[in-house]
Amino acid sequence: MVNQRLDTGWQACKSDSSGGSNSGESSKESSRCSTPVLDADRTDRLRDKMRRRIESGDRWFSLEFFPPRTAGGAVNLIARFDRMGSGGPLFIDITWHPAGDPGSDKETSSMMIASTAINYCGLESILHLTCCNQTKEKITAHLNKAKRLGLKNIMALRGDPIGADWEEEEGGFNYATDLVKHIRHEFDDYFDICVAGYPTGHPEAESYEEDLKHLKEKVDAGAHFIVTQLFFRAETFLKFVKDCRAIGITCPILPGIFPIQGYHSLRQLVKLSKLEVPEEIMQVIEPIKDNDDAIRNYGIHHAVEMCKVLLASGDVPGLHIYTLNREVATIEVLRQLGLWAEDPRRPLPWAVSAHPKRKVEDVRPIFWASRPKSYIYRTQDWDDFPNGRWGNSSSPAFGELTDYYLFYLKSKSPKEALLKMWGEELTREESVYEVFTNYITSQVNQSGHKVRCLPWNDDPLAPETNMLKEKLEKVNRRGVLTINSQPNINGKPSSDPIVGWGPPGGYVFQKAYLEFFTSSENVSALLKVLKKYEPRVNYHIVNVQGKNITNAHDMQPNAVTWGIFPGREIIQPTVVDPVSFMYWKDEAFALWIEQWGKLYEEESPSRMIIQYIHDNYFLVNLVDNDFPLNNCLWQVIDDMFELLDAPPEPLE
Amino acid sequence: MVNQRLDTGWQACKSDSSGGSNSGESSKESSRCSTPVLDADRTDRLRDKMRRRIESGDRWFSLEFFPPRTAGGAVNLIARFDRMGSGGPLFIDITWHPAGDPGSDKETSSMMIASTAINYCGLESILHLTCCNQTKEKITAHLNKAKRLGLKNIMALRGDPIGADWEEEEGGFNYATDLVKHIRHEFDDYFDICVAGYPTGHPEAESYEEDLKHLKEKVDAGAHFIVTQLFFRAETFLKFVKDCRAIGITCPILPGIFPIQGYHSLRQLVKLSKLEVPEEIMQVIEPIKDNDDAIRNYGIHHAVEMCKVLLASGDVPGLHIYTLNREVATIEVLRQLGLWAEDPRRPLPWAVSAHPKRKVEDVRPIFWASRPKSYIYRTQDWDDFPNGRWGNSSSPAFGELTDYYLFYLKSKSPKEALLKMWGEELTREESVYEVFTNYITSQVNQSGHKVRCLPWNDDPLAPETNMLKEKLEKVNRRGVLTINSQPNINGKPSSDPIVGWGPPGGYVFQKAYLEFFTSSENVSALLKVLKKYEPRVNYHIVNVQGKNITNAHDMQPNAVTWGIFPGREIIQPTVVDPVSFMYWKDEAFALWIEQWGKLYEEESPSRMIIQYIHDNYFLVNLVDNDFPLNNCLWQVIDDMFELLDAPPEPLE
Repeated sequence: MVNQRLDTGWQACKSDSSGGSNSGESSKESSRCSTPVLDADRTDRLRDKMRRRIESGDRWFSLEFFPPRTAGGAVNLIARFDRMGSGGPLFIDITWHPAGDPGSDKETSSMMIASTAINYCGLESILHLTCCNQTKEKITAHLNKAKRLGLKNIMALRGDPIGADWEEEEGGFNYATDLVKHIRHEFDDYFDICVAGYPTGHPEAESYEEDLKHLKEKVDAGAHFIVTQLFFRAETFLKFVKDCRAIGITCPILPGIFPIQGYHSLRQLVKLSKLEVPEEIMQVIEPIKDNDDAIRNYGIHHAVEMCKVLLASGDVPGLHIYTLNREVATIEVLRQLGLWAEDPRRPLPWAVSAHPKRKVEDVRPIFWASRPKSYIYRTQDWDDFPNGRWGNSSSPAFGELTDYYLFYLKSKSPKEALLKMWGEELTREESVYEVFTNYITSQVNQSGHKVRCLPWNDDPLAPETNMLKEKLEKVNRRGVLTINSQPNINGKPSSDPIVGWGPPGGYVFQKAYLEFFTSSENVSALLKVLKKYEPRVNYHIVNVQGKNITNAHDMQPNAVTWGIFPGREIIQPTVVDPVSFMYWKDEAFALWIEQWGKLYEEESPSRMIIQYIHDNYFLVNLVDNDFPLNNCLWQVIDDMFELLDAPPEPLE
Repeated sequence: MVNQRLDTGWQACKSDSSGGSNSGESSKESSRCSTPVLDADRTDRLRDKMRRRIESGDRWFSLEFFPPRTAGGAVNLIARFDRMGSGGPLFIDITWHPAGDPGSDKETSSMMIASTAINYCGLESILHLTCCNQTKEKITAHLNKAKRLGLKNIMALRGDPIGADWEEEEGGFNYATDLVKHIRHEFDDYFDICVAGYPTGHPEAESYEEDLKHLKEKVDAGAHFIVTQLFFRAETFLKFVKDCRAIGITCPILPGIFPIQGYHSLRQLVKLSKLEVPEEIMQVIEPIKDNDDAIRNYGIHHAVEMCKVLLASGDVPGLHIYTLNREVATIEVLRQLGLWAEDPRRPLPWAVSAHPKRKVEDVRPIFWASRPKSYIYRTQDWDDFPNGRWGNSSSPAFGELTDYYLFYLKSKSPKEALLKMWGEELTREESVYEVFTNYITSQVNQSGHKVRCLPWNDDPLAPETNMLKEKLEKVNRRGVLTINSQPNINGKPSSDPIVGWGPPGGYVFQKAYLEFFTSSENVSALLKVLKKYEPRVNYHIVNVQGKNITNAHDMQPNAVTWGIFPGREIIQPTVVDPVSFMYWKDEAFALWIEQWGKLYEEESPSRMIIQYIHDNYFLVNLVDNDFPLNNCLWQVIDDMFELLDAPPEPLE
């Protein structure tokens, strides 16, 4: 749901109901713990989202991926989810690889990839599930696990029989219909169910008509919508829809779109799916079969033209794209169709998780702003998520982050790339300052590499932070090692392309925030300077041992991002919370060692420099509470430098 | 706690604790339902409030009242609580009248007056309780009832024996000490306990020294502080404190200050308390004993001079004033001492209740803004109160308001006064428009009376609403009968004398709001006009039958007042809640009949006009969501009038 167009979701629903008076029922009980619907798209089931889109005439797209083969592939795929999620798919789906331990906890399993897509990437996801040659117990176990992980949608498939001499099994799963029935029987209405349609008939079906009847059975058994096998001509699909409607299939039918991306992938897919590529396509492709770019360009052109016909027909509410786990062709097709969200609307300033348990969550500490996956991981066991208020719970019960190895928490860059960015050899603390500075400025370092990430930021600088670039460069160069910041904002429209979020017609606000590591010498000067900025600036200053210096109330969170919208309660998605800061501090300090220090040999000078910083520097955060005025935090740092530069005061 | 200086309460508490890391304890459970401490003064016990004031050196005052004799007296006393509460007493106390059914539910009982002071006037209150000639069961019953009503503080007294031949009773309550012990024994630490001290010794005590020992026993039995009997010379009290400290009494000792207000009241009190008036006072008073003003002026002068000495001594953290239920002298003494809060800081834009159950409450619907006592009454059975978010509970479970006769809900004006203000005889709907207009303008009506209240507003126009006077006058004159409104505010300092509230250094905001009754003809035109103001303006339009026209989300509250403060979460104390509006609508329509219509004979023309309005008019509320722009709601009304004035459109 990240970055999705929310035009319908956010809209006030117009009602003219003769409500009648309520005051007759004056029940004594009242539960004041509230759950405002921040965004219907976050709480609705997939079938309801589709229904609303169909009603409003808003066309959507969805994306199909298959699980990766290697751990590295998994890290890349998750990064791709983040990028492609920003285009605004209504959902993604993950295929089931019967041979590849798909229900396991392996980082490459279908189950884990789908879980990560939902929990960490915030994408509405469908998990494929095939039932052929499976026991009911096994299937139920898979479904239970899926439910536990937050998955709400299943694509129910028969799957390909293993071995050629497959026969129907008494009491087993012989058809997808059996699986649909089983899901309904065991899980009632819990899952939204999708089934496959074959616009040219299933290759094993006796006839096209016979196959349509099977499809009708699947839908009647309890499926909510249909995604079709790929096809090459718009009329194939449109006839298929007409035929479906004729026999009484009324649910949404989504065309499966396969942008041809290469000669070999086309051949392979066609072979697997037993489809025939129309002559007019083969005639174009055969002559250019060794020119990948040319084929891809043709594939894009062909897909766009076909989709235009489909969308114009009025029978197609959304397009389902077979991505083959690649980005370029898919995005280009969707761009040309105007379906790719170029300027995605953000429901909140941070990307929300799609786990159903988190549907009301709308407040988070600012500290994890650049490490949202780590935040989600460390809070995954919570029963409730903050809504409206962060609260002053004395024990937010953060899980420990020792699992840096989990693929969804890993840096996108391998060790070699990190060494090139952060230095093969560090000689002094200033070498570290330079890495931070190069990250800010996007300049290449001495060995000619751009610093594209830091242990605390796995992505390049946010556009918002870009606004602070010049200031940030200056202070990092002098050892104020910034890891998080935001400018103050005094009521910008919620539609602002850089800092806007939430429904249209609103206003967003921020208090200026700055978080950095710096030496204890700097902290001594800083504390003297901060006296001048009381009570305007709140600070928390802590070292790895937990020595904590603050002028803020022990338990009071400080809202640093909030929005005011038509017809809504105030939303304050980001807070500086003193209690969580102590948990974040452990993670922030540990990243020095876990992500940076461990790149070097033990006892090596490089490692020892990182260790020294870890052991001796302080983590500082500053909030300028006076958001309508110019941000004073830079002046605070300047004053600190000035004090450090001043000649020592003569003794009286 | 209404309108109290909150300098210390709001202040961020500076801490420099070496907190140590928390991340080791990663308990799985977490309760995310939060209770931020909005204002320590609201949640602290009285003893803690005193301690904090003593630590910060902030002097306080408190006020003693006795229960009234008549129902009318009770209405007046409650109005006096509201007025004197605004001066910022740390607490008030209500004496116990053993002969007057003090623990009953009568509107004149000590128990009811104290309960009203807490629940409806938001004043920290102490209930006196005397134990002489009472059974333990009776005392326990009183204490249980007090606890149930939200009372947290007891002044434990022996009381005067009934009859002259009082003797100690075996196992009974013979001394206040017995009562203190009983409270401690039965209610543990629940109540804060105050006991009486006698600066010149209790008249029945064997000696001054013996009486001091008794006092020590009372404190040792579990009392938290001492309030003294009145005295006439500062040195009397200062010696008493010194003597108390000498024998080991360490709790706060508050001097009882009695501003002489008249010759006869002085004589009577002196007789009752068996005190002697010093010669130097009698010499001044005797010659002017028939000149009430002169005596009062002297009494003020004398009290101020004595209090100055007391405060200067450093031994007096607060003054306890015996008000005799009068305002002038007490307020004047406190003003001259600089203790009266001339510009009281409001912790929230509305006056908070002091009931312990409501200590976290910080959101209310705007509808009851002028009828807070009714709101408190209708929500008294809630188990939780909204904190941070109003929420979208579909059943806020408002109690019915049928008890218009309850003294704390009654109009301050008797029937005759209301008839003079609202008209002895109404002849047409426009007569009603005129009443509304006269209320707005504070002009006298045709019969020469100022309209000081309306059924929906028992007080004159708020200063904030005064800002809208001209506009309001214009629309009321034309039958847009306004009952609630607020201007938009885009970030005024929280210290603003008119619209400010909350801790210093913050900013307050409002969306413009307007609520009125108007005819169905006007509503038809209004609805056409409102189309132009979509989605900027949210509206709810409802008639007495509950026909409900709105463009707002069914369940979404709209925050219309909020504040941003240093180091805190956002506070949004006022919302327009669609669900509560349906409950408010019943009350708002009923007030036409209950408070106005019933002033007239049944079937009388006046009564029928009110009934007609009740049956046919609509209640409308409008919110202009675009708070940074100029309030457009007046333009909306102007457009409506323009449409109504326009010649009918020619048929095509």
